[in-house]
Amino acid sequence: MGLDDFRGELSAAIGADRVFEGGDRYATDWTGRYSAGTCLVVRPSNTEQVAEVVRAAARHGVALVPQGGNTGLVGGGVPHRGEVVVSLESMRQVGPVDVVSRQLTAEAGATLQQVQEAAVAAELRYPVDFGARGSATIGGTVATNAGGINVLRYGMTRHQIVGIEAVLGSGEIISRLTGLVKDNTGYDFVSLLCGSEGTLGVVTKVRLRLVPVAPHRCTFLAGVPDLATAMACVTDLTRNLDTIDAVELMMANGLRLVSDCIGLPVPIADHSVYLLIEASSEADQTEAIGRILATRPGVEVVSAATAQQRRDLWRLRDEHTPSINMLGPPAKFDVTVPLRAIPRFVPEVHRLIEERHVGSTLVIFGHAADGNLHVNVIGVESDDLERLGDDVLGVVASFDGSVSAEHGIGVTKKRWLHLSRSEAEIASMKAVKNALDPMGIMNPNVLFD
Amino acid sequence: MGLDDFRGELSAAIGADRVFEGGDRYATDWTGRYSAGTCLVVRPSNTEQVAEVVRAAARHGVALVPQGGNTGLVGGGVPHRGEVVVSLESMRQVGPVDVVSRQLTAEAGATLQQVQEAAVAAELRYPVDFGARGSATIGGTVATNAGGINVLRYGMTRHQIVGIEAVLGSGEIISRLTGLVKDNTGYDFVSLLCGSEGTLGVVTKVRLRLVPVAPHRCTFLAGVPDLATAMACVTDLTRNLDTIDAVELMMANGLRLVSDCIGLPVPIADHSVYLLIEASSEADQTEAIGRILATRPGVEVVSAATAQQRRDLWRLRDEHTPSINMLGPPAKFDVTVPLRAIPRFVPEVHRLIEERHVGSTLVIFGHAADGNLHVNVIGVESDDLERLGDDVLGVVASFDGSVSAEHGIGVTKKRWLHLSRSEAEIASMKAVKNALDPMGIMNPNVLFD
Repeated sequence: MGLDDFRGELSAAIGADRVFEGGDRYATDWTGRYSAGTCLVVRPSNTEQVAEVVRAAARHGVALVPQGGNTGLVGGGVPHRGEVVVSLESMRQVGPVDVVSRQLTAEAGATLQQVQEAAVAAELRYPVDFGARGSATIGGTVATNAGGINVLRYGMTRHQIVGIEAVLGSGEIISRLTGLVKDNTGYDFVSLLCGSEGTLGVVTKVRLRLVPVAPHRCTFLAGVPDLATAMACVTDLTRNLDTIDAVELMMANGLRLVSDCIGLPVPIADHSVYLLIEASSEADQTEAIGRILATRPGVEVVSAATAQQRRDLWRLRDEHTPSINMLGPPAKFDVTVPLRAIPRFVPEVHRLIEERHVGSTLVIFGHAADGNLHVNVIGVESDDLERLGDDVLGVVASFDGSVSAEHGIGVTKKRWLHLSRSEAEIASMKAVKNALDPMGIMNPNVLFD
Repeated sequence: MGLDDFRGELSAAIGADRVFEGGDRYATDWTGRYSAGTCLVVRPSNTEQVAEVVRAAARHGVALVPQGGNTGLVGGGVPHRGEVVVSLESMRQVGPVDVVSRQLTAEAGATLQQVQEAAVAAELRYPVDFGARGSATIGGTVATNAGGINVLRYGMTRHQIVGIEAVLGSGEIISRLTGLVKDNTGYDFVSLLCGSEGTLGVVTKVRLRLVPVAPHRCTFLAGVPDLATAMACVTDLTRNLDTIDAVELMMANGLRLVSDCIGLPVPIADHSVYLLIEASSEADQTEAIGRILATRPGVEVVSAATAQQRRDLWRLRDEHTPSINMLGPPAKFDVTVPLRAIPRFVPEVHRLIEERHVGSTLVIFGHAADGNLHVNVIGVESDDLERLGDDVLGVVASFDGSVSAEHGIGVTKKRWLHLSRSEAEIASMKAVKNALDPMGIMNPNVLFD
């Protein structure tokens, strides 16, 4: 059959040690929701070997799924129906940093943390950051257009990539790694591949921009009376300053939960809504930000005076996910709504959950300045999860929101893609997929059927 | 024939006054290099009418060329072989500014200046800017991924667009105007359409991000002994500060020419190379920038103490093009080379021109921090322009540069596309074009044949 021929041919071409049967580490996704038990894994060591893999797969009709650190949350990096895993784990080279262009090139299998550390060693910073930095690969962050807490200031991963090398499903190698910021010579495959979730090709190398490290950082926790005031504070800050790195949103129930779970008191009085605000800049902005926040009635602010206080403020935000998990396995929705809609969206979701999912618990938190909210629902039976998804994401769609802000569509969210993308868009996506992956071998169970 | 049927059908569908014979204004490009004399023009008033135009064109096999302000420099917006012009001049609505999301939506036919003014009225700023702002349309800036002097800090137009509405060559309408910054739900048509030069579809509306206006601005002219020192200054500045808006590069011969032409003395002594540096930020950075520049031996710096001094410094830069034009019609190349290559690239081009184009004059200036150089050659006979292009762009390619930094490929640069894009990339571009414009009716004479 095709798979045996594929295996034999590739073993001869790239070495038998690079073609093997893999277990859970390759076949089971990070959430544990999807598991193929075992799967065939190929582990190429350079772009040319990846091209050999893709071309052999096309010849033998074998489907491929590119895999980085296997930290995805939507099942997009593991096999579902016999796909062969293309593991990038042998391609982990990073750097050197080019300090003149403030860029570096990394192989796809390098971790986000490796890239961050290479930047820091050159007194620069790679501005994408999130919890799984030690496992998530840079290729995975590009394939999924990873976000994180600094999107407000620096944009998504798509804004950081100045070049890419990839093997398309057609077997063609695209290589744009010279780091040209201005290069208007036709279609931008760099942006197109970013966020394509392995459905167009395998990203093998990326060239990334790095940003300066600002010497002054200030961090605030603000308690505000309601969501409308919270969003007004966001507007006041982002309209006037371009030095705001993050504005994180927490609700009273979530913050109380975290505070109890980790035994860390909230350093201000009780409020309905909380914002964690951080800025970094050439000159200290503590006073400027304090002054802006003071103009809104009912807003109470505390700023971190020490590194320990800063860490404590961030723990109140970062411990949301672990604290929520203590309540039971949550159904998680990672959505965006237009900023103006947030004060109406949050109570609408509460109303919906109370009415249609009685007995469950809702905790919402997220990135206020991006409109990106993490909606967690605990206590819903597994056979009721699709109805829950239909309900929550239906509300998201009614506010012109996105059913997936950061995580991607993968396998998990395919059911709801139509809520965020029109039929015309989905048809056009399929046409592009067909153009660059004419055999349909690249991650065929992801994004759409 | 097809064109008559197309015309009759469209006149009935969108109104006879929206389908007419146009003269130079539509048929001749801004440079005067391309002229069809007259052409059929359609002037739809909304996206649905644009879709009617595209669908009728597909039915009748009529080729279309979208046209904005007709300020392009590579012949990409005028008919070449009987294409019908789709003028966006009836679609000029801008705004209102959404101050919460710091975004606005504009119809494609609005000028760049309209967008800038709407932003300023909301105490915000649209960070793309260039000379033709009063005529260039925002749709044109998106279709060509316009750059300008602030790319260092804010990126190209592709970085400013958070949404797009367009009619693809397939007749499908893509509409993503809700302004979601985080939206990982499949392929990013917004980035793909940006820079596609009208070859995939007609952009009808765009949603743009706006940025805060920084209260403090400082402007410097620095004279430096050589290009290596100039680029070292660029590195020193951009590595340490993210408040630098522009670092413009001028050479002694160009600056002397401008100074003589406009009768404005250069306010520092003679140097080989000059940098015009501008920063804007919350706190005044005059001292910080002065301190950074002072660390490099042989660098002389003057800063603008008044608004008039600032304008004068910028005139020395902005008057380069008019002053060069006084020497005779220049052959212009708009290229990017990697930053590290600039100190070798510039003398290499001089050597080449002296050896192979005896008697011509070379003036180079550009955007130092982006590696984007404008190479002007005056005094080359018109029948020698292709050889000149082959020579200059061959050097660009030998340094891994781009044959078109900002202007696009259009018709003019098709000959040299292969110097910047591999065969695999060009084949993949054609596949994408074919997927989204299956009848090949969208600007078929542009980008590639």
